Amino acid sequence: MKYKANIQIMPQAALLDPQGKAVTQGLQQMGYTSIEQVRVGKNITMEVESDTEAGATAIVDESCKKLLANLIMETYSFSLTLI
Amino acid sequence: MKYKANIQIMPQAALLDPQGKAVTQGLQQMGYTSIEQVRVGKNITMEVESDTEAGATAIVDESCKKLLANLIMETYSFSLTLI
Repeated sequence: MKYKANIQIMPQAALLDPQGKAVTQGLQQMGYTSIEQVRVGKNITMEVESDTEAGATAIVDESCKKLLANLIMETYSFSLTLI
Repeated sequence: MKYKANIQIMPQAALLDPQGKAVTQGLQQMGYTSIEQVRVGKNITMEVESDTEAGATAIVDESCKKLLANLIMETYSFSLTLI
């Protein structure tokens, strides 16, 4: 079976996020003063072939830990849907 | 009232995504041969102050169109939650 994984990787809450800060300032200078606390991370989608949902979860989790996310600076979460 | 917006910005389906292709190949070389069709986009969170959910939706939608997403190459979607 094939699953679609939707992965969100965000900078850890405790860390500064210079890109998010730049976007916040840019938006405020454009007049969007009601926007604050912008944080910028990555959104990754992929298709995973696996017999079980647990198997697909394990593959996505491992790929996040080993390649996609830098756990020192980032946190990740993901959801799976059968396609 | 304050809303938290969760915005996903992805490369358009019709376009090549070189970063996603590189990640696909990287994962396959690491032995994750069941993963394919990786696409890499941005995940942006922000806090928006607005009296109504419709108002917050309008602000987020405008900021995506004017600054965050490049509509020629990307599509965006977002959800709002009251915080």
